[in-house]
Formats: sequence, C-alpha cells, structure tokens
Amino acid sequence: MKFKPLHDRVVVEPLEQEEKSSGGIIIPDTAKEKPMQGKVIAVGSGSRGDDGKVVALDVKKNDKVLYGKWSGTEVKIDGKTLLIMRESDIMGILQ
Amino acid sequence: MKFKPLHDRVVVEPLEQEEKSSGGIIIPDTAKEKPMQGKVIAVGSGSRGDDGKVVALDVKKNDKVLYGKWSGTEVKIDGKTLLIMRESDIMGILQ
Amino acid sequence: MKFKPLHDRVVVEPLEQEEKSSGGIIIPDTAKEKPMQGKVIAVGSGSRGDDGKVVALDVKKNDKVLYGKWSGTEVKIDGKTLLIMRESDIMGILQ
Amino acid sequence: MKFKPLHDRVVVEPLEQEEKSSGGIIIPDTAKEKPMQGKVIAVGSGSRGDDGKVVALDVKKNDKVLYGKWSGTEVKIDGKTLLIMRESDIMGILQ
Amino acid sequence: MKFKPLHDRVVVEPLEQEEKSSGGIIIPDTAKEKPMQGKVIAVGSGSRGDDGKVVALDVKKNDKVLYGKWSGTEVKIDGKTLLIMRESDIMGILQ
Amino acid sequence: MKFKPLHDRVVVEPLEQEEKSSGGIIIPDTAKEKPMQGKVIAVGSGSRGDDGKVVALDVKKNDKVLYGKWSGTEVKIDGKTLLIMRESDIMGILQ
Amino acid sequence: MKFKPLHDRVVVEPLEQEEKSSGGIIIPDTAKEKPMQGKVIAVGSGSRGDDGKVVALDVKKNDKVLYGKWSGTEVKIDGKTLLIMRESDIMGILQ
Repeated sequence: MKFKPLHDRVVVEPLEQEEKSSGGIIIPDTAKEKPMQGKVIAVGSGSRGDDGKVVALDVKKNDKVLYGKWSGTEVKIDGKTLLIMRESDIMGILQ
Repeated sequence: MKFKPLHDRVVVEPLEQEEKSSGGIIIPDTAKEKPMQGKVIAVGSGSRGDDGKVVALDVKKNDKVLYGKWSGTEVKIDGKTLLIMRESDIMGILQ
Repeated sequence: MKFKPLHDRVVVEPLEQEEKSSGGIIIPDTAKEKPMQGKVIAVGSGSRGDDGKVVALDVKKNDKVLYGKWSGTEVKIDGKTLLIMRESDIMGILQ
Repeated sequence: MKFKPLHDRVVVEPLEQEEKSSGGIIIPDTAKEKPMQGKVIAVGSGSRGDDGKVVALDVKKNDKVLYGKWSGTEVKIDGKTLLIMRESDIMGILQ
Repeated sequence: MKFKPLHDRVVVEPLEQEEKSSGGIIIPDTAKEKPMQGKVIAVGSGSRGDDGKVVALDVKKNDKVLYGKWSGTEVKIDGKTLLIMRESDIMGILQ
Repeated sequence: MKFKPLHDRVVVEPLEQEEKSSGGIIIPDTAKEKPMQGKVIAVGSGSRGDDGKVVALDVKKNDKVLYGKWSGTEVKIDGKTLLIMRESDIMGILQ
Repeated sequence: MKFKPLHDRVVVEPLEQEEKSSGGIIIPDTAKEKPMQGKVIAVGSGSRGDDGKVVALDVKKNDKVLYGKWSGTEVKIDGKTLLIMRESDIMGILQ
C-alpha cells in the first residue's frame, strides 16, 4: 500500500454486494440510506483532540466494515478503486 | 450476532407495535413524532470525548427501547431487518 | 412507572390548564409561546459532559413544571398521555 | 413568589416605560432594538458549565434591568404579567 | 453613570466624526463597513469562560475606541444617546 | 502609530501589487480568491482562550504578509489607508 | 522558499496528473470530488488549541500529498504556481 491517510481518515476497498445470502448482511433496496460493505486497507494515525493528543482509531486494517453509500472520496491506487473516508463515516465492523 | 457497531452506535430490532393494550405503551396516531419500540441487539464500545476517553453507553443488549420513527439506517443481518442508530436517538428504556 | 428516560430526558404528565384562577399561574392567550404546566413522572440519570461525567438533573419526580407548548414527544404509557422532553425544555418549577 | 426558574433563567416584571424624564433612561423610538426596563423577581441557581459546575448568576432579585424587547416568554403569576428569560438576554443593571 | 453593563458588555458614547483632519483617523466613505469612534462610558465585569471564571475586559472607561457602524443597542441615559455593545464589537483603542 | 488593535486583530498597510516581477510573488488574475500583500503596522495583545489566557500573535510589526482580498475593515489613520483584520485572515509571512 | 505559512497552513505545489499509469494513483474522471496530487513546499508552525498550545503538523516538506480539487488559494512565488491550504484539506501522504 502506497498511501497513508491523515488523522482520522481511512482507506476502504468497496466489496461486491451480494444481493441475496442466507446468513450474511443484505441491504434492502428500500433502505433510506443504503449502507455499503468494504474492507479497510489503511488507517490514519488517529484523530486529534483540542489538546493535540492523538486518539488511535477503532477500525484496523483488514476489518470488514459497513459505511454510508455517499461516504468518502474515490481514488484509484495500483489499479484498484478505493475510498478515502473519515472513521466517523463507518457504522460498524462485520465479524 | 455478526456486527459490532462503532462508538456510540446501537443496533436495534424493531418490535411489532400493538395498537391497543391496557397496560402497555400506546403511541397515539396523532403524535407529532411517532416513537417506535425495539430491542437492543448490539451496542458500540462507547462515545469518545474531546480527550479521547471512552464513555460506555447507557443502553445494554436486550433493553427494550423507545426511539424516533425516522432514526437510524436499515440493514438486514441474518435475515432480520435491523436499525443502526446512535444512542442519542433512543428516548428511554421500557422496564 | 414502566419507562426510564435516558440521560437528560424527563417524562412529564400535562396538567389541565385552569383558564382563570386568583392566585395561580395563568398563561395569557396572547402569549407569544404559550407555556404549559405538567407534573414530572420520571427523570433520566443526568446529562453527560464532554468528559463523560454524569450531572444529575435539577427537576425531580413530582415537581410541577412549566414547559414550552411544543416541547417533547407524546407517548401513551398505562393509558396516560405523557411527554418525553429534555430538561432544558423546562422553564422552571412551581412551588 | 411561587416560581423557581431553572438554571440560568430569570423572572422579570416589566416596568412602565416613562416616555420622558430628565435624568432617567429614555429609549428613543428610533432605536433599532428597543430595550425595556424591568425588575428581577426570581433567579435560577445558575448556569452549568461543561463539567457540571454551577456558576451563580450576576443579576439578583430586585435588580432593575434592561432587556431586549422580544426577550423571554410571557406568563401570568399571581395576577402579574411576568417574563421568563435567560440572564444573557439582560444587557445590564440600572443603579 | 447609572448603568452597569453585564458580563462582556460595554457602554459607548458615539463621538462626532470629523470628516477631515490632518493627523486623526478618517474613515473613507467608500469603506465597506464604516467604523465609528466612541468613548467608553462603562464596562461589564468581564466575560465568563466555560468554567465560570471571569476574564476582565481589555477596554477601560474613557478609552477612545473604534467600532462597527451597526454594533450595539441604542439607549438614552441622562439625556445622552449611548450604545450598549459587546467588547468583541470593538476593533481597537485610539491612543 | 495611534491605534492599538484589540485581542487578535492586526493593522495592515496594503502594499502596491507589482503585476510582474521575476523573483517575487505574483498573484495570477485567474486566482479564485486574489491574495494581497501588506505590511503589519500594529498587532493586538493576543487572542484569548476559553480559560482567559492570552496567546500572543504570530505576526509582528513590520512583517510583510499575504491576506485575502476581502479581509478586514478599511480605516484612514494619519492619512494612510489601513486595514484592521484578524490574524486568522493572514495566510503567511513573506521572508 | 520565501514564504512562511501561518499556523496550520501548508504550501503545496500541484503535480502534473498522469492520466494513466500502471502502479501509480489514477483519479477516475467520474470521481465525485477529484483529488489532486501535490508536493509540500512549506508548512506552518502548527495549529493552536483552545489553550494556546501549538500542535505541530503531520505533513512535512517534500511530502507528496492528495488534496481536494477546490482546496486552497492560488499564488505565484518565484514563478511557480502554488497553493496555500490548511492541513485539514490534505487527505493523506503518498509513500
């Protein structure tokens, strides 16, 4: 990986959404804001509080995450389409 | 449960609203913002203050809660329609 | 009472407004924002500051309070129409 | 007095404005925001900072104050028309 | 002086603007926001931080100050037209 | 100099922009927001934090600075057209 | 370099975008907000917290960075077209 996100930013690789699966997560078409699945590729060193202390992020490399459909900025790194977003755009971690 | 919400997020399973009951909670149709009942399925590790300290949430797994009708993002996990919302969207706990 | 409000929320039972009384509180029809009287039925554990410390509320169960006409969310609990509002929606306590 | 304002709220009794006086305060009709005179009837216990500490108010009962014309919420207590406002709506104290 | 401004408020007496002067301050008619000159008549005890500590003001009685044309609220005290404004409306002190 | 700016304000004397120079700074006409050059004539004592502590400014008298075209309020002091602006309107110092 | 940015500002020299490259970063034309590549030429001394403490920036001189297309203010210094932006406009560092 050749990109280090700043502060509380995270690089996410979007995953193919399986429309139908028995035990996985399905996002209904009728959902108000359709969340997306992705894999975390790189994380920033942490957000900085008012006093300058760095707070490490909760998501880690390789975490499978859910995020809002319109989150982040699209870039292409090494041929892959990736998203740079803030950790607060991530709703949770799939385990 | 295969989903861990981040920070102050909570996963809620919406409950069937009983339109009429003698001793339970009934939300009148005329209510300005119709609150909904649900069961907490998973909670995040807590919100983070300016100084990075994590503050655990007040709702716990299996709590029956009231929340605003338009709160949260709908997802389908293991065949169930669930809502990911912030703890601040929850008005209180039914006991 | 079967409902525990979260954080700085308060459950208030609206009281019948007496339109005319010699020594009580009368809210004139011409008032810009017509305040209402109610009785506090349940209070949350307190608001939480930036550092996560809980600050207990100033209103207590059974306090008779004044609140703005459009405050809160209406629910029906045990057959009574109640309001869930934040403590900051309450203007003061009638003694 | 039968009403205790919450936090940083203050109860003010509006005073008759004397349109003309030699040594008093006259608010010109052309003033952009016409300030009003009133007498403080009751004060809250103080505003609360982020850390929950209560900071006592600077105005006291019986202070004669200037406030903005559109400040506060009108109520009638014991037959008197009074205003419930925040201390920050008060511009200063007449001595 | 019969008026004590609250907190960070200041009472300013507007000064006659001399349209032309060799060594003084002239505010050009073409100025985007025309600043005004005035004399400080009374100052509040200071602004209050989040923790309730009072911070004394930097302007003092009798300071000649520059302020924005639309700053403050006009009142008439003892026959003089004065302005009540916040210290932050004052740009600086003429020496 | 007869003017002491308050807090984080700075007095800047605009400099003639040289449209063309080999080694200097040229601001292209096509720039979205055209920055201007000026010389610092006077600085305030510093900005004040929430706790009332004064933080001295980073620009000093005689610094040559870049600032946004629409920054500040124009005044004429001792025959010179000057600008009163906040330090945050200044982008940097030319050395 | 003849320009020292103030506080959390950074001077960035935009780099030629290679439209196609096998291992580099390509920003697709369809990207919602097209990020740009650039080289850091100078950095400010750091952002200042509420308490006045300076927090050094995370980007350094010569870092290759990604930033949003509309970030910053364009200036010409020593014949080069440069951008003055805040560190928060920078998404991450290319390594």
